[in-house]
Amino acid sequence: MLLEKIHNPDDLKQLKKEDIPILAHEIREKIINSVSKTGGHLASSLGVVDLTVVLHYVYNAPNDKIIWDVGHQAYAHKIITERKNKFDTIRTYEGLSGFPKRSESEYDAFGAGHSSTSISAALGFAVARDLRGEDFKVVAVIGDGSMTGGLAFEGLQNAGYLKKDMLVILNDNEMFISQKVGAVAGYLAKLLTAGMVKKAQEKVMKTISRFNSFSSPVSKFLKRAKVMLFPGMLFEELGFTYIGPIDGHNVNSLLQVLSNIKDMAGPVLLHVITKKGKGYRPAEEDPMKFHGVGKFNVETGQMPVKSELTYTDIFSKTLVKLAKNNKKITAVTAAMPSGTGLDNFAKEFPERCFDVGIAEGHAVTFAAGMAACGMQPVCAIYSTFLQRALDNIIHDVALQNLPVIFAVDRAGIVGEDGATHHGVFDLSYLKYIPNLIIMAPADGNELQHMLKTAFNSGKPCVIRYPRGVVSSPEVLDLYQSVLQIGKSKILKEGDDVCIIGIGNQVDNCLKAAEILKQKNINARVVNMRFLKPMDETIIKETLVKTKNFITVEENVLSGGFGESVESLLCNSGAKVKMIGLPDEFIEHGNAGILREKYGLTPENIVRKAIELIES
Amino acid sequence: MLLEKIHNPDDLKQLKKEDIPILAHEIREKIINSVSKTGGHLASSLGVVDLTVVLHYVYNAPNDKIIWDVGHQAYAHKIITERKNKFDTIRTYEGLSGFPKRSESEYDAFGAGHSSTSISAALGFAVARDLRGEDFKVVAVIGDGSMTGGLAFEGLQNAGYLKKDMLVILNDNEMFISQKVGAVAGYLAKLLTAGMVKKAQEKVMKTISRFNSFSSPVSKFLKRAKVMLFPGMLFEELGFTYIGPIDGHNVNSLLQVLSNIKDMAGPVLLHVITKKGKGYRPAEEDPMKFHGVGKFNVETGQMPVKSELTYTDIFSKTLVKLAKNNKKITAVTAAMPSGTGLDNFAKEFPERCFDVGIAEGHAVTFAAGMAACGMQPVCAIYSTFLQRALDNIIHDVALQNLPVIFAVDRAGIVGEDGATHHGVFDLSYLKYIPNLIIMAPADGNELQHMLKTAFNSGKPCVIRYPRGVVSSPEVLDLYQSVLQIGKSKILKEGDDVCIIGIGNQVDNCLKAAEILKQKNINARVVNMRFLKPMDETIIKETLVKTKNFITVEENVLSGGFGESVESLLCNSGAKVKMIGLPDEFIEHGNAGILREKYGLTPENIVRKAIELIES
Repeated sequence: MLLEKIHNPDDLKQLKKEDIPILAHEIREKIINSVSKTGGHLASSLGVVDLTVVLHYVYNAPNDKIIWDVGHQAYAHKIITERKNKFDTIRTYEGLSGFPKRSESEYDAFGAGHSSTSISAALGFAVARDLRGEDFKVVAVIGDGSMTGGLAFEGLQNAGYLKKDMLVILNDNEMFISQKVGAVAGYLAKLLTAGMVKKAQEKVMKTISRFNSFSSPVSKFLKRAKVMLFPGMLFEELGFTYIGPIDGHNVNSLLQVLSNIKDMAGPVLLHVITKKGKGYRPAEEDPMKFHGVGKFNVETGQMPVKSELTYTDIFSKTLVKLAKNNKKITAVTAAMPSGTGLDNFAKEFPERCFDVGIAEGHAVTFAAGMAACGMQPVCAIYSTFLQRALDNIIHDVALQNLPVIFAVDRAGIVGEDGATHHGVFDLSYLKYIPNLIIMAPADGNELQHMLKTAFNSGKPCVIRYPRGVVSSPEVLDLYQSVLQIGKSKILKEGDDVCIIGIGNQVDNCLKAAEILKQKNINARVVNMRFLKPMDETIIKETLVKTKNFITVEENVLSGGFGESVESLLCNSGAKVKMIGLPDEFIEHGNAGILREKYGLTPENIVRKAIELIES
Repeated sequence: MLLEKIHNPDDLKQLKKEDIPILAHEIREKIINSVSKTGGHLASSLGVVDLTVVLHYVYNAPNDKIIWDVGHQAYAHKIITERKNKFDTIRTYEGLSGFPKRSESEYDAFGAGHSSTSISAALGFAVARDLRGEDFKVVAVIGDGSMTGGLAFEGLQNAGYLKKDMLVILNDNEMFISQKVGAVAGYLAKLLTAGMVKKAQEKVMKTISRFNSFSSPVSKFLKRAKVMLFPGMLFEELGFTYIGPIDGHNVNSLLQVLSNIKDMAGPVLLHVITKKGKGYRPAEEDPMKFHGVGKFNVETGQMPVKSELTYTDIFSKTLVKLAKNNKKITAVTAAMPSGTGLDNFAKEFPERCFDVGIAEGHAVTFAAGMAACGMQPVCAIYSTFLQRALDNIIHDVALQNLPVIFAVDRAGIVGEDGATHHGVFDLSYLKYIPNLIIMAPADGNELQHMLKTAFNSGKPCVIRYPRGVVSSPEVLDLYQSVLQIGKSKILKEGDDVCIIGIGNQVDNCLKAAEILKQKNINARVVNMRFLKPMDETIIKETLVKTKNFITVEENVLSGGFGESVESLLCNSGAKVKMIGLPDEFIEHGNAGILREKYGLTPENIVRKAIELIES
């Protein structure tokens, strides 16, 4: 085992070049075995093992800065950079993060988890380096999917303008999270035909050499036309020197090219073609399935069959059902058709489903345009990614009061993906936006009703729901009724304390009430349903019964649901305790462990209720 | 006067073609005269008068949809579309909006105020039209500055992919809000040399025609190379048919080209060259000065000399002073060097100042990259535009706890620019973000101290301050002292009521206390200084004196400062009244009128204090 001797990039540099492919193979084995037990992002991590090893062979991290876009492909990087022995803790509570993380290692120059940030960050490093008179290399590694994000474009053009020495490696793995979309993706596909173009190049270059005697404007033209002879013109036009495409699994070729361009001046874009899942046949054959995985059988590639219904499943089924009778319904996803459950909608109504690529801002403004023209678009975007479209929600949707529906999936704690992915801010970043209706279902049935209610309202609506199986998995009726907007639901009567929950925490409130009952404490339990407009009536009416209130939400407390309830109760003499997440970033780990830690449990509600009553 | 007969596009279509330039001239006169009295966006509006008249001559609005990016250039559009007689009310309270607004007119297909949204919205219209089986044209008009925004790129590439019939007019006015930056701007500059290239084109086309007999791969190459013979390749690569550049002030040429391309299939980009300020010499000569103006003398172009110090001035001076002794300080603006006051910094330290174009997301992540490499960057971005970088603040800055300083200018009510520009959400959209320190100065001196404090903290910091002259314009000492983080300041002692203000509202709190004193009510007045971390001590300590609290903030109440105070006081028996903005979008108009309307006045604080004490 070569890997046994490798702890850091210095060890790696002791290897002979011929040994690199062997080491890469061993690293792949380690990743496959480990991820089969912990789950994680397998296909993209396997795709860049060769590239990662060569990068660390040629460059000198941590002095040189390697910045991984999105970061879910950094597993080999972690193994090589002093984290080999902890690798089997990846994504587990208190273990290694599944993403680059500055606080975890000096080799992680810039953290990530969301896409398209690497070029902007790398440019920041390059500019700072030059101002400080330092001398190191900066490399950003970005996938073709991330390249569709507007932020990547902003970074590219600013880097092209500032002309700093830096390398952007475009890791083109012929597939991004779903299928390729957008013109840039199409353009990248064109580049892949470069081999075919090459023969033509030779002929044309000969012919063109004749032009050199022509007049000067023609020469100028030819200089520009030369770009056309080689792929990558789009990047050349943005100010980059384009090199590629090269085979990202040919170690010799990678070694040679990277060594050659390491000292090139100005911004360079190296186009590398890799294969997702490289080296593990089940993942090569179905990279989609192995993008983000749970446990699986290494021998067979088989995963446990999922049997329980998730919120995503219910959203998916309900949307298809509603869309059958409502031709105005369209759906937009930002490169997550499968994760958001829109894949079913796309199958049923391909002409009404739009995967716009990793471009959340455009997704929302595009939906606003459709809504302004009489359609009823649904934007299905994860809570954490919807942060990227805040201004589009405010300026394009809410200000114009357009009926766009936001299906905010993965709201609350998501578990193993950690701080970059928890959806724990959305109630706070949406609450203050005028004109929005904001709902959170307590269970699967309610999600159906809320979706119907949203379409029925003709207003901009948000429905936020968590990752995972539905709480109270009672029989789903697949019948959608329209809820009264801004009306909560009393689930249990009681007059010692009122426990008000929103979304997936309603279930915990009910369980807490059961426990309290055994202690002769009668709790009124309210499913708030709507963060906004808020049911002020129920809260004021409750005051007749009890002055003790508890709010429970899976969101940060700051700026969230509980503060709104407190504000309503402020001058009433009521006592309120809020349960929710503290003002800090939540680490990664099993969602159950995290909920326990932060008191999102029936037991904690009980404890707070007793404290309140006894205070 | 031709304009007398023109009320809507139908009237316009009755004109002979030869009369169009005359009408355009009259519209220019009207805009110049009107804006000289009301203020507004003059230079860019004058630049597109010819284009606007021809657009409405060729297209059939409101059936055809014309979508103005940013929208500050839509004055001629408003005059032609039934709003001529109200035009002199533009930007005044209850008058016409300075931007396209759906609720104002059916001719305003999509509202704007922020940049780079038009292509995404236009694509939404085009998609909806085809799904509904309708038949109208969609035109987006976007400036070269807006084209640097990532959202525009996301829109372009999705439009290029979906291949819907739509027209994007690139209004290239050779200058965007400040100077051109970014590779796209450089690329546009290249296109401007197209005239020079033209002669070469002819020669080369002849030569190239010979190649047609060559082998097929060469033909393929030539087909692609053809793009090189004409400018606009970048757009061609994104899937658009590129036409141009043409002179945007040559009415005949505009008429001919627009008529020709009106029925072209697929996405078309028409590149039009216009001159900012066209037809008004002072604005042609200094379009920067006439970008957004107050009142001015039409004859001379002179504007009243500004004498009072604004918050922006103080930020500007202080930053330059601090940067002289701190080489780590860099500054980033998103195309607003003059508006944010960074122009002075750029003059003094050109190598440390970065204008990244209209790209707020990149501005923040780029700054995070610099901070990760040991610099102390300041991002000076208006409150309303910083909404576009929320995820970058959360994911790239706060999560990594990087010392980026956000100088959030134009926070609070901005006045005449209205709903798209008021900075009334920032306390709410920033409050819940872990690791941020959030401050708001009560006056100019405090802004200096806060800037120094921010640099001293080594943490991510926000300083939000309003548009306009400093309140309490006492003598500024230009001496910066470091404040204790999270510590408020008691400005006046009293025990009948405690009035807690933040930012520019502290001044009103003091004035209210003066009035209350005359009524024998003694108010304690606290300048909160820090929204976060909040000075819990002062609030709890005050409870010994009084249970009556008033909070005052120029921000929406929802999710804002007052709710945090209420939350602290919730179980204390205190009574709290919050003063701030309601849960609705604030219209345009004089800031004084708006503050009066929404109770941001000493008189309203007095009223609330008395209510509280008497309740």
